Amino acid sequence: MSKTSYSIAVLPGDGIGVEVIDATLAVLRALEGRIGRRFECVKHPAGAQHYLNGGDSLPDSTLAACRAADAILFGAMGLPDVRQKDGTEIIPQLDLRFALDLYAGVRPIRTFAGLPGPLADPRAAQIDLVLVRESTEGLFYARGRGRIEGAGDAAEAFDTMKITHKGTARVCDFALKLAQQRKARGKPGRVTNVDKANVFQSMAFWRQVFDERAKAFPDVPTEHAYVDAMALNLVMKPWAYDVLVTENMFGDILSDLIAALAGGMGMAPSADIGDDYALFQPAHGTAPDIAGLGVANPSATILSAAMMLDWLAHRHGDAALGDGARAIEDALATAFAKELVRPREFGGKSSTADIVRAVVDGL
Amino acid sequence: MSKTSYSIAVLPGDGIGVEVIDATLAVLRALEGRIGRRFECVKHPAGAQHYLNGGDSLPDSTLAACRAADAILFGAMGLPDVRQKDGTEIIPQLDLRFALDLYAGVRPIRTFAGLPGPLADPRAAQIDLVLVRESTEGLFYARGRGRIEGAGDAAEAFDTMKITHKGTARVCDFALKLAQQRKARGKPGRVTNVDKANVFQSMAFWRQVFDERAKAFPDVPTEHAYVDAMALNLVMKPWAYDVLVTENMFGDILSDLIAALAGGMGMAPSADIGDDYALFQPAHGTAPDIAGLGVANPSATILSAAMMLDWLAHRHGDAALGDGARAIEDALATAFAKELVRPREFGGKSSTADIVRAVVDGL
Ligand SMILES: CC(C)[C@H](C(=O)O)[C@@H](O)C(=O)O
Ligand SMILES: CC(C)[C@H](C(=O)O)[C@@H](O)C(=O)O
Repeated sequence: MSKTSYSIAVLPGDGIGVEVIDATLAVLRALEGRIGRRFECVKHPAGAQHYLNGGDSLPDSTLAACRAADAILFGAMGLPDVRQKDGTEIIPQLDLRFALDLYAGVRPIRTFAGLPGPLADPRAAQIDLVLVRESTEGLFYARGRGRIEGAGDAAEAFDTMKITHKGTARVCDFALKLAQQRKARGKPGRVTNVDKANVFQSMAFWRQVFDERAKAFPDVPTEHAYVDAMALNLVMKPWAYDVLVTENMFGDILSDLIAALAGGMGMAPSADIGDDYALFQPAHGTAPDIAGLGVANPSATILSAAMMLDWLAHRHGDAALGDGARAIEDALATAFAKELVRPREFGGKSSTADIVRAVVDGL
Repeated sequence: MSKTSYSIAVLPGDGIGVEVIDATLAVLRALEGRIGRRFECVKHPAGAQHYLNGGDSLPDSTLAACRAADAILFGAMGLPDVRQKDGTEIIPQLDLRFALDLYAGVRPIRTFAGLPGPLADPRAAQIDLVLVRESTEGLFYARGRGRIEGAGDAAEAFDTMKITHKGTARVCDFALKLAQQRKARGKPGRVTNVDKANVFQSMAFWRQVFDERAKAFPDVPTEHAYVDAMALNLVMKPWAYDVLVTENMFGDILSDLIAALAGGMGMAPSADIGDDYALFQPAHGTAPDIAGLGVANPSATILSAAMMLDWLAHRHGDAALGDGARAIEDALATAFAKELVRPREFGGKSSTADIVRAVVDGL
C-alpha cells in the first residue's frame, strides 16, 4: 500500500524564489483533495538573505531536513554582491548537488501553445526534449580546487575536469532509462550523447562509457554529437532531439540554450536527481529587479513541482501522484492555450497570482 | 609604399574544402585587376586525404609555407574514420593554432537580406556580432595532455584547463581593439566578457585580467556575462551584442551557436589571428556527404577571404585591400538580397559555381 502523505522540504531562498515557491505551494494544496494525497510542506532557511541575517547560506539543519524529507522543492538563491567570507558566491543549489550526490540534472523543455518561442519554423511547436546534465563531476569537480601559480604577468590558473567511469555510467544509465520511459509515453525514446571526444581524452573516455552502457539498452537508439555542433543544431532543428546526455559544464550551457527555445528561464523547470534524494527547482535565478512586485512567472516552479510528483510516483509506486503531475501540466498548458494568462516576458500582463489562479481553476 | 603583391598559402584540405577554396580563389582572381593587387596563391597539401595517400596530415613543408606566406587560406580538413596512427583525429586547424600561436579566434556573424535565419523576431535582421575565442589555451590546453588513472569501474579521466595572465591579456586586448575599430565603422563598439567566474577560480582570474585590460580602453564600454546566461541571450536577443570575448572551449560552443543565427555553418567565416601569422577559414567542416557534387555553399570561405583582405590591409597599411574586402562582401550581400542566388541550405538551388559567378559579376 502506497503512502498518502509526502513530506516536502521547501527552500524558497531569495528574491522571486519566495514568490514562485508560494505560488507553487498554492497549486500543490489545490491538488491535494483532487488526488487524495497530502503534501507536508515545511519551509527551511537558506540563501543570501539568510546569510546576511547572520545565518549560514546552507544551514546544517536545512541540509538535515532535506535528507529527511521525501523530496526537496527549491526556489532560487543568491543576491547581487552578497559573498561568503571567503569571497565566493552563495550557491547552495550547487552545494546540495554535491552533498546529496544528485548526479542527474534533468532539464526538460517543451513549447506551449499560446506562448510563441523565438524560432520562426512552425516545427518549433513540436519541441519536446530533455537534457540530462551530469551534476557531480566534470569541470565542476574543479570548484574549490582551482589553483594559481606564479604572480603578476606570469600568473597561471588551473582547473581540472574529472570524468569517472562510475559517474559517467550512472548518468548515462539514467538518460537511457529516461528514453525508455519516454518511449512508453509515445515519445521517440532516443538518446543523443553530447561530448567533445575529438579533442579531449576525458571526453573520449566519456564516449566509451556511454557506448558501453548503451549496449545494455539495445532497444534505445543512440547517436553521438560534438557539443559545438549540438549548440548549432539546437537552434537549427531542436525538434529532432529527444533525450540528450552530457558533461556538467556542457550541460550548464546547453540547458540554458534550450530554455531560450521555450521563451526563457521562466518556462524552464529542472530536477537534480540522485539515488537517494531529489531536488526540484526552476532554472531561473532570484531576479532581484522584479522581486516583491508579484509579477514573477511561476511556471518553471509549478512545472518543477510536477516533475517532483512524477519522481515520487515512480519511487513510491503511487500512480495518483503521476495523475497529479499530468493535471498540473495540463492546467498550465490549457491556461496558456486559451490565453487565460500570459507571462510578462511573452508580452502579457499576468501577475504571479493570475497564473496560480488559472492553474488552480483548471485543476 | 605598400606592397602590390601578396603571397597566400592555400590549404584546401578534404571534402568540400577543395571546392569552396577553388570558388574563393576565383573571386580573388576577379578582384585583382579591380584593386590593382596580385594574390600569389599557392596550394599546399594537408589533411586526411593526404594522410591516406601516405603523407603527413600537416607536412613540415606545408607548415613552412604557412610561415613564409603573407596569409593562410584554409579550406576544411578531416574525413570520417580517418585517424592518425595513435588513434587521434586529424585536425590540422587545431595544430596550426598552437604551432603559429594564433590566439584570437575571430568569428563574426551577420544576417543577410534575402537569407532568413531561424529567429522569428524582425530584429534578427540587425544581428552583427563578433565572437573572439581564445585559441591557444583554456580547456584546449589539455589536448594531448589528458590522463587516465585506474582501470575498469575505477577508471578516472582528467583534463586540465589553463588560463594564463599573458594569454588572457592579449586576447582581451584584441577584443577591446576590435571594438574600437568597429566603433570607427559605426557599430556599437562594446565588449561583453563571457566567463564562469561564479564557479571556477581560473575563470575568476580570467575576469580579473579582463577588467585590468578594460581599464586601458576607457572609451570601450564593457560588461560581464556568465557563459550559460549568454547561451540563452544569444538566442533571445543576439542583436544586443557587439563583440564577445571568451575562453577557448566556451568560444567553440558559442561560435557554433551564433553561426546558427545566420542560417548555419555555410555562412560563418572565421580568422585565427596571432601577432605574426593569420589563418582564414570557413567554420564548416568537410561535409563528405555532398563533396564533389558542386553544391557546397562557398559563402563562408569567400567571407573568410574578405576578412583576410581586411587583416592584410591593416597590417600592410594598404587601403586598396580593405576596399577589396568591402567589394566582396557587398557583391555577396547584393546577390542574396536581389535573390540572384540562394544556397541549398536556405531552400535554394544555387550551385557553388552559381554563387561564385554572382559575386564575380557583382565585383
Ligand atoms: C548558479 C550556477 C552556479 C548554476 C550552475 O552553473 O550549475 C546554474 O547556472 C545552474 O544551471 O543550475
Ligand atoms: C574541429 C574542432 C576540433 C574545432 C575546435 O573544436 O576548435 C572546430 O570545432 C572549430 O571550432 O574550429
